[in-house]
Amino acid sequence: MRLAELSRRSGVSTATIKYYLREGLLPPGRQVNATKAEYDEEHLRRLRLVRAMIQVGKVPVATVREVLGHVDDEDLGRTIRLGAALWALPQVPEPDEDDEYVRAAQREVLALLDRLGWENTRQLTTISPAYRSLVVAVAAFRRLGYGFGAELLAPYAELMYRTAVLDLDHMEGYASDAERIEFAVLGAILNEPVLQALHRLAQEEETARRYGFE
Amino acid sequence: MRLAELSRRSGVSTATIKYYLREGLLPPGRQVNATKAEYDEEHLRRLRLVRAMIQVGKVPVATVREVLGHVDDEDLGRTIRLGAALWALPQVPEPDEDDEYVRAAQREVLALLDRLGWENTRQLTTISPAYRSLVVAVAAFRRLGYGFGAELLAPYAELMYRTAVLDLDHMEGYASDAERIEFAVLGAILNEPVLQALHRLAQEEETARRYGFE
Repeated sequence: MRLAELSRRSGVSTATIKYYLREGLLPPGRQVNATKAEYDEEHLRRLRLVRAMIQVGKVPVATVREVLGHVDDEDLGRTIRLGAALWALPQVPEPDEDDEYVRAAQREVLALLDRLGWENTRQLTTISPAYRSLVVAVAAFRRLGYGFGAELLAPYAELMYRTAVLDLDHMEGYASDAERIEFAVLGAILNEPVLQALHRLAQEEETARRYGFE
Repeated sequence: MRLAELSRRSGVSTATIKYYLREGLLPPGRQVNATKAEYDEEHLRRLRLVRAMIQVGKVPVATVREVLGHVDDEDLGRTIRLGAALWALPQVPEPDEDDEYVRAAQREVLALLDRLGWENTRQLTTISPAYRSLVVAVAAFRRLGYGFGAELLAPYAELMYRTAVLDLDHMEGYASDAERIEFAVLGAILNEPVLQALHRLAQEEETARRYGFE
């Protein structure tokens, strides 16, 4: 398809598409003559991903370029390729290890991982942004005077594990590794608001079931 | 306890506590003489909640006052009291009903609720911010060219329902209705980052289990 059709089908203006091409966020089209290039379904897919990262995820252009570099790096193993793409997305800052609440939260989260038998994650704690986010969130609770121990967290973690199994089953429905990793990146940006809204709806439903509307 | 001890135990400065007292976010202490007042455990609990809403949830002071008004309103039934407190928290804006993606998302979400048999929630769709958030999130996916139908969403919704059952079981561990509703408000602000981090950790664990580190 030509640029105009790529624009129509993606809902992204031709000026913005040209900007993405210049910034290397979109691979160049196949040049048909000096002024015209041809684009395919892969361009459309990539354009949607770029737009989701920039417009919905508010990811800076330089970070989008870095994430896409990992998505396209076929030399990496699948776990590392997926990790590298997701870890390049904006993350919480490094927690302050001198803070007593942070240290207590670290102990709590490590006890949780042991209890769950999440041995792979246990090995990744020094590099995983998800581990860091959990430590920061648990430390915030502690600082406000609320404990959030391994016993309380474990059943939540088990449900989130089942959610992750659904995510990966769904991801495996895609044909190529690049598509699968694109889906995972997109999920990291767009799934959270969907899950959060479903959780709140479920709380409403269960509250009404337990206590009625009186 | 005196103001100084309330400050020490909560980690909130005396100047900030005085500001909260002036703004009516904290009930006045028991006056022991012209210049001294006595505070109790209930003040400490309320102070922690106010601080969580303002510092972590970035909730404006006027909204905090509104939420607390519902928390303390014993004339409301429990479901409505809980709903009113949670619904007063900042929410996504009303979706644009003229937008074709929004209308498609509304149909999809209603089909999902029917499929799940969430009849209580089905009755609340005109007023529920959680319903609105889900419509907005599903419409954002659609606008980017990704469908997110009831069939795909239903297993996620079932897991979120089980998460909500844990939330309510935990809430029922508190003795008074006011404490329970405080816990729910706190949960709405602080639980999301914990669940999100657990979900991402679970994705890492399951990815490594399926594909190893090669």
